[in-house]
Amino acid sequence: MMKTIGIMGGMGPMATVDLMKKIILATPAKTDQEHVPIFVDNAPQIPDRTKAILGQGESPVPAMVKSARRLETAGADFIIIACNTAHYFLPEVAPQIKIPVLSIVETAANEIQKRGYKKVGLLATSGTIRTGLYQKALNAKGIECLAPGAEKQHLIDDLIYDGVKASNMAYDTAPVCQLLDSMQQEGAEGFILGCTEVPVAVEMYNLKGAFIDSTEELAKAAVKLAKA
Amino acid sequence: MMKTIGIMGGMGPMATVDLMKKIILATPAKTDQEHVPIFVDNAPQIPDRTKAILGQGESPVPAMVKSARRLETAGADFIIIACNTAHYFLPEVAPQIKIPVLSIVETAANEIQKRGYKKVGLLATSGTIRTGLYQKALNAKGIECLAPGAEKQHLIDDLIYDGVKASNMAYDTAPVCQLLDSMQQEGAEGFILGCTEVPVAVEMYNLKGAFIDSTEELAKAAVKLAKA
Repeated sequence: MMKTIGIMGGMGPMATVDLMKKIILATPAKTDQEHVPIFVDNAPQIPDRTKAILGQGESPVPAMVKSARRLETAGADFIIIACNTAHYFLPEVAPQIKIPVLSIVETAANEIQKRGYKKVGLLATSGTIRTGLYQKALNAKGIECLAPGAEKQHLIDDLIYDGVKASNMAYDTAPVCQLLDSMQQEGAEGFILGCTEVPVAVEMYNLKGAFIDSTEELAKAAVKLAKA
Repeated sequence: MMKTIGIMGGMGPMATVDLMKKIILATPAKTDQEHVPIFVDNAPQIPDRTKAILGQGESPVPAMVKSARRLETAGADFIIIACNTAHYFLPEVAPQIKIPVLSIVETAANEIQKRGYKKVGLLATSGTIRTGLYQKALNAKGIECLAPGAEKQHLIDDLIYDGVKASNMAYDTAPVCQLLDSMQQEGAEGFILGCTEVPVAVEMYNLKGAFIDSTEELAKAAVKLAKA
C-alpha cells in the first residue's frame, strides 16, 4: 500500500508541474497503477512569500494552512511544498496541521553532503537568501554556502519573476551565466537550484552547470517515503 | 473570483502533468496570483479503462466517483478528466456527483468544427475507438471520423502502452508515421490526438502532422470556464 503524496503548490504553478513530473520520472513503474497517488493543491493565490519576508506584503501562513488542510482532507499522508521560500513559514504552519512535511531544504542539503561538496553557490529568491534557510542547514553539515551578494542578487530575482513566472522565452540569460562563472571562481563546487522556478529556468534557457536541483531531490525523497 | 478546476488524473500520470501544464500556458498571467486555482487528484490506481471496455478488467466507475468526490470536497467548481477513454464511463459517474464535468470529447469536436475539417483521423486507444465516443460526437456535426482499422490499431495502443506509459524514449515510431501517411491518403485532413498520452508521444518522439490536441483544447476551454 503506497502513501499518498500531498503537494502544496501554485508557488508558482509551473514549478508545481515540474515537481509532479519529477515525481513521476523518479518512480519505477511500467503501468499507471504502479505510480504513486498524489493530490495537488495548486493554490496560486497564496500571497507572495518573498514580499512577505521583505515586509512588503501579507503573510502567506493562513493560506498555507488552508491548503495543508485541504490536502489532509483529501487523504494525503504527508506534504511536500513546491516552493523553497515558503519553507521559512513552516514553523508557523506545521503546528496547525496533523500530517508531516518533508522539507525541500533538508533533502537538498542531504544530497550536497552525499556529493561531498564543501562550498556551494545558492541560486534562490532574495526572500530565501534573507531567511538563511539553506545557510543554516548547510553550515550544520560543515558546508559553506555562497550567495550572489547584494549587487548581483537581482539577477536571480529577475530571472525568476521576469523570465519564468512571466513565461518569457526570450529572456536574456547572459548576465546570469556570468554570475555563475564568477561564483565558481570564488570556489563554488556546485549550485543549489534553491527556488523551484530555477530548475524551470535551467530547462527553459538551457543553462549549464553542476546543479543540485532541490525539486528533483525532493521528488526522489517523496517517492521513497511514499513507497516505504 | 475565479472558479477552481478539478482534474481527475493519474490516467496516466504524465498525461495529467501535460494537461496541467497546458492549463498554465493557456492562462494569461504575469504573476502566480493571476493563475487559476486547480486541484489535481492524481489517482493512478483507477483500474485501466480500455481493459474494462474490452471486458478484460474491473470497472473504473467506483474509483472515478471517489476521485470526483475528493475534488468536490476540496472545493472544485467543475471537473475535467485527463483521459479520453474514461469519458465512456461518464454517464455512470455524473449522476453520483454534484459538480459538472467539461468533456474532452466535446471540446475537441468543437475545435474540429471550427477548423472546418470534414474528415479526420482518430488516434486513440482500442477502448476509445470501440466506444464510438468521437465517432458519435463528430457525426453529429457532419464530420467523418476515420480510425486506423483492425489491423493497424495495435500501432497506436503499443505507442501508448509500450512507449509513453513505459517512459521508453527509444521506442520506434516509424510504423506509426507510415500509418499517419496512409490515413492522410484516405482523406484525413487532420488527426485527433484522442488519448491524453498521444500528445505526450508527439512531444517525446517529435511526431509531425495537422493535430487536434484534445488535451490542449480541454485546457483552453477549462481556463475560459474558470475565468467566466
